[in-house]
Amino acid sequence: MDIKITRAKQLKNKPDESNLGFGHYFTDHMFVMDYTVEQGWHNAQIVPYGPIPMDPASMVLHYAQETFEGLKAYRNHDQILIFRPEMNAKRMIASNERLCMAEVSEELFVEAVEAIVDYEKDWVPSAEGTSLYIRPFCFATEAGVGVHPARAYKFIIILSPVGAYYPEGVNPVKIFVEDEYVRAVVGGTGFAKCGGNYAASIAAQVKAEKMGYTQVLWLDGVHRKYVEEVGTMNAMFVIDDEIVTAPLEGSVLPGVTRDSCIQILKDWGYTISERHLDIDDLMEYAKNGRLKEAFGTGTAAVISPIGELSYKGNVQIINDFKTGELTCKLYDELTGIQWGTKADPYGWVKTVK
Amino acid sequence: MDIKITRAKQLKNKPDESNLGFGHYFTDHMFVMDYTVEQGWHNAQIVPYGPIPMDPASMVLHYAQETFEGLKAYRNHDQILIFRPEMNAKRMIASNERLCMAEVSEELFVEAVEAIVDYEKDWVPSAEGTSLYIRPFCFATEAGVGVHPARAYKFIIILSPVGAYYPEGVNPVKIFVEDEYVRAVVGGTGFAKCGGNYAASIAAQVKAEKMGYTQVLWLDGVHRKYVEEVGTMNAMFVIDDEIVTAPLEGSVLPGVTRDSCIQILKDWGYTISERHLDIDDLMEYAKNGRLKEAFGTGTAAVISPIGELSYKGNVQIINDFKTGELTCKLYDELTGIQWGTKADPYGWVKTVK
Ligand SMILES: Cc1ncc(COP(=O)(O)O)c(C=O)c1O
Ligand SMILES: Cc1ncc(COP(=O)(O)O)c(C=O)c1O
Repeated sequence: MDIKITRAKQLKNKPDESNLGFGHYFTDHMFVMDYTVEQGWHNAQIVPYGPIPMDPASMVLHYAQETFEGLKAYRNHDQILIFRPEMNAKRMIASNERLCMAEVSEELFVEAVEAIVDYEKDWVPSAEGTSLYIRPFCFATEAGVGVHPARAYKFIIILSPVGAYYPEGVNPVKIFVEDEYVRAVVGGTGFAKCGGNYAASIAAQVKAEKMGYTQVLWLDGVHRKYVEEVGTMNAMFVIDDEIVTAPLEGSVLPGVTRDSCIQILKDWGYTISERHLDIDDLMEYAKNGRLKEAFGTGTAAVISPIGELSYKGNVQIINDFKTGELTCKLYDELTGIQWGTKADPYGWVKTVK
Repeated sequence: MDIKITRAKQLKNKPDESNLGFGHYFTDHMFVMDYTVEQGWHNAQIVPYGPIPMDPASMVLHYAQETFEGLKAYRNHDQILIFRPEMNAKRMIASNERLCMAEVSEELFVEAVEAIVDYEKDWVPSAEGTSLYIRPFCFATEAGVGVHPARAYKFIIILSPVGAYYPEGVNPVKIFVEDEYVRAVVGGTGFAKCGGNYAASIAAQVKAEKMGYTQVLWLDGVHRKYVEEVGTMNAMFVIDDEIVTAPLEGSVLPGVTRDSCIQILKDWGYTISERHLDIDDLMEYAKNGRLKEAFGTGTAAVISPIGELSYKGNVQIINDFKTGELTCKLYDELTGIQWGTKADPYGWVKTVK
């Protein structure tokens, strides 16, 4: 790919690494590429971060033909590492296919990610727990108000230096089991990382926060009883000697962190089952102590222990609201691989030249 | 509301009224208004139609916090009429509430619609069946990649002179009953007019068109058997002497045309039931002749007769693939009211000064 580079006239001051938050700061440049039916993907550029002029009839603003990805670049001294970018590329292909959008090939996607991260490498922070969040996204730019697959798209990558996702650090969070709103249903777009899923999820998030909870645990939309995901993370439950997580049947996002955890846990000899888990059973296991640990997995927070579950007025504390042993071990292993401080037997980490 | 007006330096040539299509042409000006948490809605303007500069981190491009409406202005000689704009205003309030977006009050919404239609009144076409499609829409402009309700929005109205929605005219269409993809589920966003619903629907539409069908008939996402909507229309079925349409339980869009048809049909003495209708029963009624007529209702096509239903390989023709008597009568009544050629006992039509 030929990337045309236009350097920003003035570079920004880098923000204070001890107070980055999540997704508030953006770097000096972004990657942009255009698609038309006639030309395919073309016009790959690195340009100064800044506003994009959009026709008010751009289909993305009306029919939400938009998908995104999220991954991170980690600093290990002078090396910049990225974690399994090809997984994000593949997931975006699946998302775009579901929304009938032009697909960015795995090769183009990874090349673009590496190019912009390399160009902005000074922005990868070095403080403990910090990283450079990479946000590739794709949306329909065709102007028109008929509902149909658009004939023109943009693929953009923006970068944001981030701190730990939860300001509280790796501490257990309180989770509200949502029984009114539904995130996704088989036959819908739950497995795709598309904007509509997130717009639909905000009401539940707001409701949970109002009641003092950090995130919601989603139940399936058909039976309203099988555990699916927790906020923007996949969820894992250690029940006796079995680790249970929801199967990928169309309504759950196939998380890269989820997949990585499953591989590590299997290699450690654990029994991990991708199966339906009834919320009534889960609450019972929490009550009688069979639920040893519970945690969410996702790029933003990596591993996030769950300390409390509240379902229809029934409140259960997990592991005395302490981060469990396995949760800790998994967090250390995965972040160790990601930051390059532990061996990477899986070949997951890519060094950006 | 104080509206600042900036006139376009050069006006466009009006398109040929005999060949408008749907949503291809936009008028010279648009209405734009901004929202921030601090200021509320402010900065109402009529400006030349043209690109909006958008931050690449604008939340609408990532999390699809976006809603829209669709209504029409009709020309009756020198008068410009709009149809029940307060219904669209109310629906947008409900949509924005579901997506935790700032709400545009009914009063502001209607005032803005009237103001821009009045300003662009030369664009309301006069040829038979043509009208000016009005597209109010609202989206999150806050820049940031954390998932939360945005703190800044835009509300815009663009206008497009349109012809008949189906180029074939008021002729029966072939409908494919979709049993793989799901449009909406109770607890989700089906009742809201938000972008995500439409992005999710495109795959089924494409699939149906490939097989030679005009639209899909959606089934409910839980049981996968109750009839919901047809494409971007509500659906009505004349079974014996009963007219059946899906109830508004959260997964179906509450159409303004649907509501208007229900009122007219009731006044005509018909029995109209908002109830679940099993697709297996419907196919059986179509087969044994009890299904007399079927049609979709929506702003774009007004009334669209259904001539064929295909479900899991079972193909049934309705009313010999001819537009039914009641369908015709309803079309004439409603379009008569809309264009001001028939009496309006309901007070639905508003004259734009
Ligand atoms: C809904 C949802 N589930 C799960 C995940 C976890 O996916 P990943 O591990 O690839 O970040 C995410 C993304 O962060 C998400 O948005
Ligand atoms: C999904 C869907 N259902 C039904 C309708 C009909 O609604 P209305 O009669 O208000 O146009 C529409 C909008 O046109 C729609 O998009």
